[in-house]
Amino acid sequence: MDKEGAFAALARRFGEQFVTSAAVRGHHAKDISYLPAVMPDGVLYARNVGDVVDLMGIARDYRLPIVPFGAGTSCEGHIHALHGGIACDMSQMNAVVAVRPDDLDCTVEAGVTRLQLNRELRGHGLHFAIDPGADATLGGMVATGASGTNAVRHRTMKENVLALTVVLPDGQVVRTGTRARKSAAGYNLTDLFVGSEGTLGLITEVSLRLHGLDEAVAVSLLSFADVGRAVAAAVDAIRYGLALARVEMLDAVAIEALIRHDGLDLEPRPALIVELAGSPAQIEEQGRILAEIAAGHGGAERAWARETEARNRLWQARHNVYFALTALRPGGAGWPTDICVPLSALAGQVEAAQADIRASGLPGAVLGHVGDGNFHCLYIVDPDSPDELRQAKTMNERLIDRAIAAGGTCTGEHGIGHGKIGALARQHGDAIPLMRAIKQAIDPLNLMNPGKIFAN
Amino acid sequence: MDKEGAFAALARRFGEQFVTSAAVRGHHAKDISYLPAVMPDGVLYARNVGDVVDLMGIARDYRLPIVPFGAGTSCEGHIHALHGGIACDMSQMNAVVAVRPDDLDCTVEAGVTRLQLNRELRGHGLHFAIDPGADATLGGMVATGASGTNAVRHRTMKENVLALTVVLPDGQVVRTGTRARKSAAGYNLTDLFVGSEGTLGLITEVSLRLHGLDEAVAVSLLSFADVGRAVAAAVDAIRYGLALARVEMLDAVAIEALIRHDGLDLEPRPALIVELAGSPAQIEEQGRILAEIAAGHGGAERAWARETEARNRLWQARHNVYFALTALRPGGAGWPTDICVPLSALAGQVEAAQADIRASGLPGAVLGHVGDGNFHCLYIVDPDSPDELRQAKTMNERLIDRAIAAGGTCTGEHGIGHGKIGALARQHGDAIPLMRAIKQAIDPLNLMNPGKIFAN
Repeated sequence: MDKEGAFAALARRFGEQFVTSAAVRGHHAKDISYLPAVMPDGVLYARNVGDVVDLMGIARDYRLPIVPFGAGTSCEGHIHALHGGIACDMSQMNAVVAVRPDDLDCTVEAGVTRLQLNRELRGHGLHFAIDPGADATLGGMVATGASGTNAVRHRTMKENVLALTVVLPDGQVVRTGTRARKSAAGYNLTDLFVGSEGTLGLITEVSLRLHGLDEAVAVSLLSFADVGRAVAAAVDAIRYGLALARVEMLDAVAIEALIRHDGLDLEPRPALIVELAGSPAQIEEQGRILAEIAAGHGGAERAWARETEARNRLWQARHNVYFALTALRPGGAGWPTDICVPLSALAGQVEAAQADIRASGLPGAVLGHVGDGNFHCLYIVDPDSPDELRQAKTMNERLIDRAIAAGGTCTGEHGIGHGKIGALARQHGDAIPLMRAIKQAIDPLNLMNPGKIFAN
Repeated sequence: MDKEGAFAALARRFGEQFVTSAAVRGHHAKDISYLPAVMPDGVLYARNVGDVVDLMGIARDYRLPIVPFGAGTSCEGHIHALHGGIACDMSQMNAVVAVRPDDLDCTVEAGVTRLQLNRELRGHGLHFAIDPGADATLGGMVATGASGTNAVRHRTMKENVLALTVVLPDGQVVRTGTRARKSAAGYNLTDLFVGSEGTLGLITEVSLRLHGLDEAVAVSLLSFADVGRAVAAAVDAIRYGLALARVEMLDAVAIEALIRHDGLDLEPRPALIVELAGSPAQIEEQGRILAEIAAGHGGAERAWARETEARNRLWQARHNVYFALTALRPGGAGWPTDICVPLSALAGQVEAAQADIRASGLPGAVLGHVGDGNFHCLYIVDPDSPDELRQAKTMNERLIDRAIAAGGTCTGEHGIGHGKIGALARQHGDAIPLMRAIKQAIDPLNLMNPGKIFAN
């Protein structure tokens, strides 16, 4: 990397869009993971595709790493500039290019955030379904292959992206798909970039599937004696084929944290929060069946919310759980992780994760999108204690290895970043040479987000 | 290609599994497209992964093309051995490896067919949802990115494949995923192979998502004055968010052919066949709404089937339509094609396709999976008339160019094969170099199904 030459070229081409102040670099140094911050050498605020093409040219000329940056809400150090270089901040490319209610789709620049898009869609009676919790950019959600609470119904990003515009490392601008709702025309480039974590190119525009708002929605909160029974009830509801919009599990620690933080009027027992959607008649019918399934596992309904405000209170609590949990330990930092396993393994894996946390003595909770077999652990560590960090790392590796042994994956939705590179190698060792061959073919100079997915 | 040396090596290694008789080669020379047959030089009946690995080794040693062969039901010449070489017939790799009802998934060898799998699943109360009509092998359905009548509800192959085992051209055996229902672990290799048409490797095993059988199902047949109104009603039902399992449109020509062929008691007017699934109460409710939506477009319900037998009669008619249409012209051959467009463009595109057929004077029909904006034309041509073939080709190209101009795709589910290579270049010209770079990285000797997706 010829940093001096590169910086002169960047300043010449981009003027005030190119920033090297420590403050701005510091704002681009860390995501929400437990991993230590690593600053980029500079930040470029891209305003259009031409900017990105030119950045790519300068990067090639001076062997300058590029780290795409959306909202900084990734969970495995995806945006940490491990090899220096330039953070390409996409937040100014935030135009909603087109909303097409008749086609149930839209096209947005990559820096548009999820909540921004949904505000614009509300007037059309539409919404974009994927909700990872954070107000991530849509480009970032594509790059990390995000999903979240709605995945049991609407699946993940890959099932909701129609097409991407991507600037490749060689400067070519490629449109990966069309607006047709399905296509069999050539290699599926769109899904190659979904989850590629900025290592293959820079996503500048995204076309997305949209969904109509539901006629009626109800949220049920069900309490259980233990997480095993809560998970068993959730899996039964999936197998029964209930029209579930979301199925979230919170363990007793998480519920207790929410009782303290949000003043929820609940017992500190594991809970499912289940959302049903459809016509009013459907919801009544499905709600009755859900309560019966829960009762079969000793569960009891503690809340049933039909009105928007009451429903939002329950989901807000779910969204607050990260803060509620870290608040349990002032000065503590959250270490979030996620795995996903076949449904039959879920209850056992959740119980084992809980047992590990108890044995460690660290505060921590198990919670997640159990409808897909996906769950999270949040360990609360003292970020200055090497012992505690080592302990959390050990728990995390045990969690991952149990998931892999059960036929599952080391990450359902957070991605690899640089926090799970070893886990990826354990899970997909036979496929890593193929992944590397693709990387090498598209980014032979290894300029795009180096040190992510693969250690260099 | 050193054919003599290769054949000696193949005979040595495979004995009677390797066949070069004209009869067997002839059975591997043609799919159901309009394209002329092209025989392979020989056929290998693979029995296990080791066979495929060894075939790949001999192919590398002697520069021998390999054409993966499932059931021969592809639609764009995918299995035609344009450059000679060996058809690798997967029909003997037909073991259902595991069915896991608790995980709602299964693993099968690539030669298992769709109907075979569904027979084995029935006892578990489960089914595999993708139905392209033909009794294709699951490996073939993966390779072509198949979909069909159920796609409006269960989407396409890519949304229903959990993981693949693939033998790469270099002989490596790669597992592309896990059995987790979602994953963010590294590049999405699974979906790179879905729709790759045998050009990147040979699929030997497939893990699939399964679905429970529905509590209740009803099929409605609705008649309309013209295809524009039929399509408009279908699109309204989608936008309304009805729980549609299938939405098929048949134009008047297709209905008339079915009246003759199957003795259906109907008027020869365009029709929708719509399947609803859910609880009995849901179905009654949704059926009423569907009838109202149809009536808003002048449509009238001609049949409402709840019992399995009556429903099957309607779907059997839909499946017979290819035969019913080709029967309109003894000695005629079917030229099937498909496109997919954004929903708002669908009615206009269907009408334009119909007008082209009428103007041509050739028999032909428009029909399809309109819930996704996907429809087919079937032109009936005299296969010995260069004039008619030219005419059909012109219509097909016009159909494709209209779809591309409307933001759609030249194929929703049939794929590129060698029939739509020009169309792919018109649609994704900017992305072809990237597709070729991937092909080159994985199959540098161009041994896998050469001449498909790309002209060499």
